[in-house]
Amino acid sequence: MATHDFTPTHYHTTLGTHDPVLRIADGDTVVTTTVDAAGHDAANQRVTPPGNPQTGPFFVENAAPGDTLAVRFDRLRPSRRYGFTKTTLAPNVVDPEYIAEFPREQRQRGEWDIDVAMGTATLLKPETALGRLTLPLRPMLGCFGVAPDGGQAISTATSGSYGGNMDYKGFEEGVTVYFPVFAPGALFFLGDGHALQGDGEIVGTGIEISFDVQFTVRLLKNKRIFQPRAENETHILTAGNARPLDQALQHATTEMVRWLQSDYGLDPVGAHTLLGQCVEYEIGNVFDPAYTVICKMSRTLLQRIGNPR
Amino acid sequence: MATHDFTPTHYHTTLGTHDPVLRIADGDTVVTTTVDAAGHDAANQRVTPPGNPQTGPFFVENAAPGDTLAVRFDRLRPSRRYGFTKTTLAPNVVDPEYIAEFPREQRQRGEWDIDVAMGTATLLKPETALGRLTLPLRPMLGCFGVAPDGGQAISTATSGSYGGNMDYKGFEEGVTVYFPVFAPGALFFLGDGHALQGDGEIVGTGIEISFDVQFTVRLLKNKRIFQPRAENETHILTAGNARPLDQALQHATTEMVRWLQSDYGLDPVGAHTLLGQCVEYEIGNVFDPAYTVICKMSRTLLQRIGNPR
Amino acid sequence: MATHDFTPTHYHTTLGTHDPVLRIADGDTVVTTTVDAAGHDAANQRVTPPGNPQTGPFFVENAAPGDTLAVRFDRLRPSRRYGFTKTTLAPNVVDPEYIAEFPREQRQRGEWDIDVAMGTATLLKPETALGRLTLPLRPMLGCFGVAPDGGQAISTATSGSYGGNMDYKGFEEGVTVYFPVFAPGALFFLGDGHALQGDGEIVGTGIEISFDVQFTVRLLKNKRIFQPRAENETHILTAGNARPLDQALQHATTEMVRWLQSDYGLDPVGAHTLLGQCVEYEIGNVFDPAYTVICKMSRTLLQRIGNPR
Amino acid sequence: MATHDFTPTHYHTTLGTHDPVLRIADGDTVVTTTVDAAGHDAANQRVTPPGNPQTGPFFVENAAPGDTLAVRFDRLRPSRRYGFTKTTLAPNVVDPEYIAEFPREQRQRGEWDIDVAMGTATLLKPETALGRLTLPLRPMLGCFGVAPDGGQAISTATSGSYGGNMDYKGFEEGVTVYFPVFAPGALFFLGDGHALQGDGEIVGTGIEISFDVQFTVRLLKNKRIFQPRAENETHILTAGNARPLDQALQHATTEMVRWLQSDYGLDPVGAHTLLGQCVEYEIGNVFDPAYTVICKMSRTLLQRIGNPR
Repeated sequence: MATHDFTPTHYHTTLGTHDPVLRIADGDTVVTTTVDAAGHDAANQRVTPPGNPQTGPFFVENAAPGDTLAVRFDRLRPSRRYGFTKTTLAPNVVDPEYIAEFPREQRQRGEWDIDVAMGTATLLKPETALGRLTLPLRPMLGCFGVAPDGGQAISTATSGSYGGNMDYKGFEEGVTVYFPVFAPGALFFLGDGHALQGDGEIVGTGIEISFDVQFTVRLLKNKRIFQPRAENETHILTAGNARPLDQALQHATTEMVRWLQSDYGLDPVGAHTLLGQCVEYEIGNVFDPAYTVICKMSRTLLQRIGNPR
Repeated sequence: MATHDFTPTHYHTTLGTHDPVLRIADGDTVVTTTVDAAGHDAANQRVTPPGNPQTGPFFVENAAPGDTLAVRFDRLRPSRRYGFTKTTLAPNVVDPEYIAEFPREQRQRGEWDIDVAMGTATLLKPETALGRLTLPLRPMLGCFGVAPDGGQAISTATSGSYGGNMDYKGFEEGVTVYFPVFAPGALFFLGDGHALQGDGEIVGTGIEISFDVQFTVRLLKNKRIFQPRAENETHILTAGNARPLDQALQHATTEMVRWLQSDYGLDPVGAHTLLGQCVEYEIGNVFDPAYTVICKMSRTLLQRIGNPR
Repeated sequence: MATHDFTPTHYHTTLGTHDPVLRIADGDTVVTTTVDAAGHDAANQRVTPPGNPQTGPFFVENAAPGDTLAVRFDRLRPSRRYGFTKTTLAPNVVDPEYIAEFPREQRQRGEWDIDVAMGTATLLKPETALGRLTLPLRPMLGCFGVAPDGGQAISTATSGSYGGNMDYKGFEEGVTVYFPVFAPGALFFLGDGHALQGDGEIVGTGIEISFDVQFTVRLLKNKRIFQPRAENETHILTAGNARPLDQALQHATTEMVRWLQSDYGLDPVGAHTLLGQCVEYEIGNVFDPAYTVICKMSRTLLQRIGNPR
Repeated sequence: MATHDFTPTHYHTTLGTHDPVLRIADGDTVVTTTVDAAGHDAANQRVTPPGNPQTGPFFVENAAPGDTLAVRFDRLRPSRRYGFTKTTLAPNVVDPEYIAEFPREQRQRGEWDIDVAMGTATLLKPETALGRLTLPLRPMLGCFGVAPDGGQAISTATSGSYGGNMDYKGFEEGVTVYFPVFAPGALFFLGDGHALQGDGEIVGTGIEISFDVQFTVRLLKNKRIFQPRAENETHILTAGNARPLDQALQHATTEMVRWLQSDYGLDPVGAHTLLGQCVEYEIGNVFDPAYTVICKMSRTLLQRIGNPR
């Protein structure tokens, strides 16, 4: 149960079977940093090319295909004051006929002042009717995951069963995320911090910023899952990553119905009935090549009905 | 500003330019009842064929194409103790490969005891690991809307810009819903009460039940909207009704970005930027022929930034 | 087996249970005309509002829900020289990011000279690098079908299991189309002639023109089908009408696999195996609210393998 | 313009920046072999793990990002008599409700005798009502392409702008395919031969078999394309690879409208008008993680109108 302080010296824009930067054991904690989506660090200096550069990979001793890797986000904090956003909706989130009404000159970068002590993000530029809009911080990681199956190396622009660029605002401090292990050592990567983000990441960014992070890994040997899962104080949740949204929702729902039966003692009719009246969905992103839908179930509800693990 | 007590004698399973059952004026209130999705009334007697039978249509004096009809749900209450659900997930909400794993014998009706005084729904049948699961009521209407454009009469199984079978759990007491008016008198219909419902209506039902309802109409002359809109205590929201989910989300987002600009004093860059970091989405249904995505914006946030109507 | 000469005096822009314009019997032939999509007749005079106005409905004696109506297109001919098209791609058929590259000023009507004797369509306007492009005619009907189920009246902009605006270039002279009967008398409608059309109707029109038509009906009592089917000299085919394309393809494929088993003596493994290596798909339209995918199987192949009806 | 005889000794199940097996020059020809999708060679011996194993990559001297690589399939021939197929439709190509009707016991391998001299494929197993169905060969490659962008290594199960598992029956002998070059040397891979295949590869296989192949490369320096393009005797064509089908069609159509303007002298209105009335679509596959839609334009037509390269 060691704690490792790790300072990254290089970054990856694919999730794949890259050489590990650190070997850690089941139960270990890592304290490290991430650069922003454009490759700028806590000093806002560009240290690596853009595209959600990832810190890692971290090799988890003894992790093997067929296991599950649990990662708890102990601490996720913006590490500088400057954050940025895009300021135009992605063309794919509006009716195709409406795109022609977008002002063509409006590609401006949004600039934000991030005050971690105050817990606020304040819009500095551009000048709009929003003025100096101030929003509460909700720091989260946009892109993280493990090496995908089959020796693939997949761009940090997209996501899949291995995680990746899910851009879900609920992946925040205190959450534990579970991944299927596809490669020896699992090879965990993380990056793309957002000071906050709306549902769907519909302008193509959250408030992009560098992070100080701390996470703790746990290895569940011979525990087989198919899509990313997670738990927070109030819910268990699954992530479906695919296009279109319909398929992302199918992936997430299928993983949840499996989970309810394998770990919560529910028979099929019970699991289906519970989901029918109590499921909650959230939309992670509708911007990236693969979209993300989150399927959630209340932990309070699950405790009432039955047989927790 | 009259109040009308209306007792329905027949019902419709299409939304169309049917003969009005009552003529009401801008500001009037109607107290009436709805049968359940299967056509059973408060005494659980079948009084009309199944398929989300609708009470109405109510002709709103002076409403004309190009106007907007506002309907406030003053009161939405289950009117009997017996509610029912399906107990198997719809095949379209899971991965196609997973459908073969559904038990083939499991088409059982779920039966629930609805206690309005206690605010609870309790599962009575079938016997599952859920036992006598008790859930808090959240009464809502699944299907309601106005006559569609072009003289169409469209099944209450589906939805569109005129409303219809949106099956969104947020259409509950206290909400005001806005519809484009397509036909003289608008012709408002309502039915398909649910004691509660999960996101997506993924078993194909909420807890289906008859309702006592009270609603109040308001006519916004020469106010043009394109998709259903609504307001509750905390949010303004738009509804996109289409398949696939991607298009439903496009409709809802497009309507919201228009609304922010026309009524909340936002310039395009301001509206896009605000949506990017602050939009919330919910999934109404992923079961009906047209799915429903809800796009939401916090009223508190809107009040802070600007120029409310 | 009468032949009826029918001159329409009014038209419909919904397919629904409208009053029949003519009652005909099983085996009867009708000789009539259709106006173009904009409501203009053979003299290019506007005689009815636009929107794929339909001639009909024709009531087929003895047709009842659960039957199948067969309609053979004996003759489909443009009835004037003037045809028109749109000249800009529909925004939904290109990448959303590409729409911004469309010239904004280019909404011009394409005008074509249709020479039925020569079998040609020649582009007259606008002036483009295409010059006086001359194409071979392939006359077809874009929109036709029967009254939909449940007393619905559905816009001629869209399509479904009842037919409607399928805009498939293969619905031409010599084809026999089969529809499920949903309403007493089936209530057959037809209109929206195209002198020719590309796959997908991706500018939103074929070459729109008025038609002289002759068709013959046949009633298949107690023959149950679920989606439109058709036969021509070389193929049997099914039409799936839905959004997105994926679902249209699912509808068409499902109907074909059923047909192969019910009428061509194939066991499930035989039907699946044959489809796997021999199926052909065409895209009817990707413009209308419901898209259309055609699933085809070679008649020669079917004759070789087995047991024709 | 050398001709290289190359005998593969290992294979790849990802397309990525793997070590080249051979360096070739612009204009060179390669004569080589491919194993079947399951990793079996011309002697039907398993020589590598399954999953569309690829021969290559071939490094094309001087090829650099921003160029286009042309590959002409000079010769594509099955190299043994034994071919195999699946015999059950993929669940995603039928209506979700229909999947429950699939016989659950029917997962049998189809076995076929491939007679290259006679040009036929004959079904040997399983026993079905198809009997000894004999089909004409149409040999094609299912999976081939170049290394993708950004240093990715992507599974041969799927496809993208770099090509990959497109499973389009028109990628046959005599076709020239064009790819964007993303990596130095382009790194061309090929494999997954089919003796024949239906549209959509809807059982998840063509008739899978090992191949003898000959291809010739040509390098188009500083020619920028975005999606795979191809030419055969009768058509130019573009391939869109994505899910859902709607997006695959958007990619293909966008690439074609660009091509018509850049290389065929068409103005935007001319290109849009021509596509509107003359475009042809084919469905490559609807089975793989990314689907494939082919957009085609007749070469005869293009020669008539204009200004060929």
